[in-house]
Amino acid sequence: MSTETATAFADVPQLYKRHIFACYTQRPPGHPRGSCGAQGAQPLWDRLSRKLEAERLADVGFTASGCLGFCRAGPLMVVYPEGVWYAPKTPEDIDEIVETHIKGDALVDRLVVVLTR
Amino acid sequence: MSTETATAFADVPQLYKRHIFACYTQRPPGHPRGSCGAQGAQPLWDRLSRKLEAERLADVGFTASGCLGFCRAGPLMVVYPEGVWYAPKTPEDIDEIVETHIKGDALVDRLVVVLTR
Repeated sequence: MSTETATAFADVPQLYKRHIFACYTQRPPGHPRGSCGAQGAQPLWDRLSRKLEAERLADVGFTASGCLGFCRAGPLMVVYPEGVWYAPKTPEDIDEIVETHIKGDALVDRLVVVLTR
Repeated sequence: MSTETATAFADVPQLYKRHIFACYTQRPPGHPRGSCGAQGAQPLWDRLSRKLEAERLADVGFTASGCLGFCRAGPLMVVYPEGVWYAPKTPEDIDEIVETHIKGDALVDRLVVVLTR
């Protein structure tokens, strides 16, 4: 977003410092598109939501989403307003995203997915 | 987000100029929490997704979401990275959001919902 455009929205009060969306799409085994669910998303998102709650990160929103596209790259989550996409694979990945990005305000480079349209 | 924090993420390539999330939660009639679906969300989101497609706004993401909270304020949608929440009620509201905000880079003040935690 250009600086000019960003300025037009600069005064909008923010509900959250960050808002995380995580894909809960579950397609059946063998489905040609695959899905985040088929790639093990559910326990990861369970851990993420529990961790956000346990850390009392009240200024962080967490919302289940439908298909975010790029199904083969999943499990996919995206963090706004930064627009950072992550593909965590393990519980440790989730913990690192929370510690480093959500609490530490820094990218977890190794888990970032750069997607192109 | 502070300027300092924003700077830490300034180099992340963006998949979309904007990403819209719209709540598709449907609770049964009479449910005490209500839901966006019970307040007529579905035809509005249908119109929104068709309009984005018809206008070939390829740099705008549209994703179905689960419950965004604040169910009584719905139907709710949120536009990132601006973090602007809207509660459209009619097809004309949807058209105005697309024309004014998504294409015109300006707020639709009358449809903004300011939510607080």
